[in-house]
Amino acid sequence: MQRIRTIEVGSHTGERVRIAGWLHSLRQLGGINFLVIRDGWGTVQAVAESESELAPLHSSEAGLESVLAVEGLVVAMPQAPGGIELHDLQVEVITPVAETLPVSLNKRKITANLSTLLDNAAITNRHPARRAIFRLGAGVMAGFRSALLARGFTEIQTPKIVASATESGANVFKLDYFGRPAYLAQSPQFYKQIMVGVFERVFEVGPVFRAEPHDTTRHINEYVSLDVEFGFIENHFTVMALLRDVIASILETLSEQYASELKLLRIQVLAVPAEIPHIHFTGAQELIFRRYGTDVRGEPDLSPQDEGWLGEWAQQEFGSDFLFVTGYPMRKRPFYTHPDPERPEYSNSFDLLFRGTELVTGGQRLHLYEDYLAALEKAGLPIEPFETYLEAFRYGMPPEGGFAIGLERLLMQLTGVPNIRLTTLFPRDLTRLTP
Amino acid sequence: MQRIRTIEVGSHTGERVRIAGWLHSLRQLGGINFLVIRDGWGTVQAVAESESELAPLHSSEAGLESVLAVEGLVVAMPQAPGGIELHDLQVEVITPVAETLPVSLNKRKITANLSTLLDNAAITNRHPARRAIFRLGAGVMAGFRSALLARGFTEIQTPKIVASATESGANVFKLDYFGRPAYLAQSPQFYKQIMVGVFERVFEVGPVFRAEPHDTTRHINEYVSLDVEFGFIENHFTVMALLRDVIASILETLSEQYASELKLLRIQVLAVPAEIPHIHFTGAQELIFRRYGTDVRGEPDLSPQDEGWLGEWAQQEFGSDFLFVTGYPMRKRPFYTHPDPERPEYSNSFDLLFRGTELVTGGQRLHLYEDYLAALEKAGLPIEPFETYLEAFRYGMPPEGGFAIGLERLLMQLTGVPNIRLTTLFPRDLTRLTP
Repeated sequence: MQRIRTIEVGSHTGERVRIAGWLHSLRQLGGINFLVIRDGWGTVQAVAESESELAPLHSSEAGLESVLAVEGLVVAMPQAPGGIELHDLQVEVITPVAETLPVSLNKRKITANLSTLLDNAAITNRHPARRAIFRLGAGVMAGFRSALLARGFTEIQTPKIVASATESGANVFKLDYFGRPAYLAQSPQFYKQIMVGVFERVFEVGPVFRAEPHDTTRHINEYVSLDVEFGFIENHFTVMALLRDVIASILETLSEQYASELKLLRIQVLAVPAEIPHIHFTGAQELIFRRYGTDVRGEPDLSPQDEGWLGEWAQQEFGSDFLFVTGYPMRKRPFYTHPDPERPEYSNSFDLLFRGTELVTGGQRLHLYEDYLAALEKAGLPIEPFETYLEAFRYGMPPEGGFAIGLERLLMQLTGVPNIRLTTLFPRDLTRLTP
Repeated sequence: MQRIRTIEVGSHTGERVRIAGWLHSLRQLGGINFLVIRDGWGTVQAVAESESELAPLHSSEAGLESVLAVEGLVVAMPQAPGGIELHDLQVEVITPVAETLPVSLNKRKITANLSTLLDNAAITNRHPARRAIFRLGAGVMAGFRSALLARGFTEIQTPKIVASATESGANVFKLDYFGRPAYLAQSPQFYKQIMVGVFERVFEVGPVFRAEPHDTTRHINEYVSLDVEFGFIENHFTVMALLRDVIASILETLSEQYASELKLLRIQVLAVPAEIPHIHFTGAQELIFRRYGTDVRGEPDLSPQDEGWLGEWAQQEFGSDFLFVTGYPMRKRPFYTHPDPERPEYSNSFDLLFRGTELVTGGQRLHLYEDYLAALEKAGLPIEPFETYLEAFRYGMPPEGGFAIGLERLLMQLTGVPNIRLTTLFPRDLTRLTP
């Protein structure tokens, strides 16, 4: 008999089916054995009314996480999880497991502390609530790509080993490249900008590396960046409009294709307003002063507290979880940021806040060669490491801009987990390099 | 007027449209100026019958690669490239370029030598024949993903910074991770196998790093690997069947969605047979002896010459560009390879040859914990660096297998370019670390 997936069992009521997967739980109640079989997509309960049905388990000493194939009759049973269960079982042990699990996988929540959980990620990632998060990650990538492919964007892959450490001042990892120093790319920023000259509209999904010595709940040292860059924009508002559509596509993909993961994690997927409200940096500081009595006017950046207040305001004023803050001061933005032509000390850049926390940063970039030369000089940066980058602008670039979404940050805010390490399969932080 | 893309102009005959892009070429013939405008997707010819139409170019000294917007009337013109051209032009210079290009971009082929071409990749990647290759790369990724998503696979992202250098004996890049030694992942092999325990079916598209000191036309030191791994297989033939379908999906995606790139590169997309022919390693050696008179029987591996002969045979015998060779000797395969239960000195592994050259390697892996312990001991490898990897097998894994496709290798064979460096945007090799 052909094996079917657990998520397909519900449409076979009254038939015998064969499923396969891991022995997720096994308990006895009043002489009846309840098995839960977990496969790559879901779980199904199987009920053994006689001990003989479980004989194959006993004879091979197969305990939890053993790999089994189970044939049985699909019976509708409103009180069973998912509304169905298998009866009249024929059990086959594919790979028996005798060892006791380091962490229990069949409670609704994993109770292990963070380091036990991460040390045993190879096993704890099997927990339904853990893997639902990672599956949402796959959905985020899918929704991201589909929005961009539909808009004529081309997917690129740019090098992660680079010759130069300079970019935005972030700390980078150094490596030995055949006897020469090299670095791990802290972002595909320069490459994606260069590629605007080739394809106009590009995106990349790939790892970025930050050697920041921060040990917080919001930092990891290797993460997945969803990068976008495109030309022929009016200004940063063109970029913001695209970002709004990309976020909407991500959330749509999740609610349409990842409903069971959302349900399992008890997440209500949000709506993105047709137009996300926006406020200028200076206006935001005025607002905070008027509304909350704290005078942050003149500060070069927003604090987490400021962002929290703005999120609250956006919620109350517009009923929106999202808010764009535009026009951050030039001195807090990287040298390639385009200034506001009207007020050159402010930039054509933005942050997208989600419930009062920064989710995405982006903006318009410089696109004229002479502007780059001037900006590098102003920043006190040498020209030589930027020669290839500058070449793209020397030979004709349209006004352009883009943004980058940190996959794990987005997942963290979407799922509400308290630590970003919980959103990545095998996190890398200051002290963690395994598994 | 809203700008449209060059590839949309053909459906607007008789209307005025606005396009934008780069001044790809400009030539005078009999007092008439022919401009070719290149945008991110294609090119369109625009014809200026009066010098006044070009006045904006002259006044800003805008030469080739200047960024322009051009409005004009769409006229059907059978002898023009694409069958249409723009007349009665209104030209606007967005970004003028005065400099002479380092390499001409408007000949059908780039004539620069390889190192000039790669040194100036930021510009030479704009050449239509160059970017068509990269666009096919995007198509390969799309076709790969769509085949796998349709079959219930989950996309994963695994760490590229790893603690251990040991895997298949390949050379690895070493880096400083906050004062500790670490390495760049030479493949996601162990992680994707672990993830079979979580999702059963997984794939990843990501960079891999090989510190091999080879300076050949077929090696680069960072490349994109399209990785697949899945459980509940019968043996390597289950893996080969999936690989066949994935290759078919890739080629279908290219011919359906990338027809203009294929046409520009003059590539005929191939058909994949419903079942790709296969031959066992020992049978292949016998065949070579009988057919070509060279006795390679008993050799532990196939030489490029052997593979060439086998490709010729597959073509003549089956009319197939593809051939699976199965059952390579265990001693030439990595320790995690599953042996042939009937003949344990041979493996349940395969190579897919395309026109007599290896394109993909894959097979069934060990899945029992005890088998891993025995295999590591036999290979003389320590257990400690593999502990997480082994944990996945200790707690229940089904029979499983997978494969990895090198994106650049596939593009090289598909496009017929003589050097793999020509298939990647910004290649990394023994001596090249920029751009």
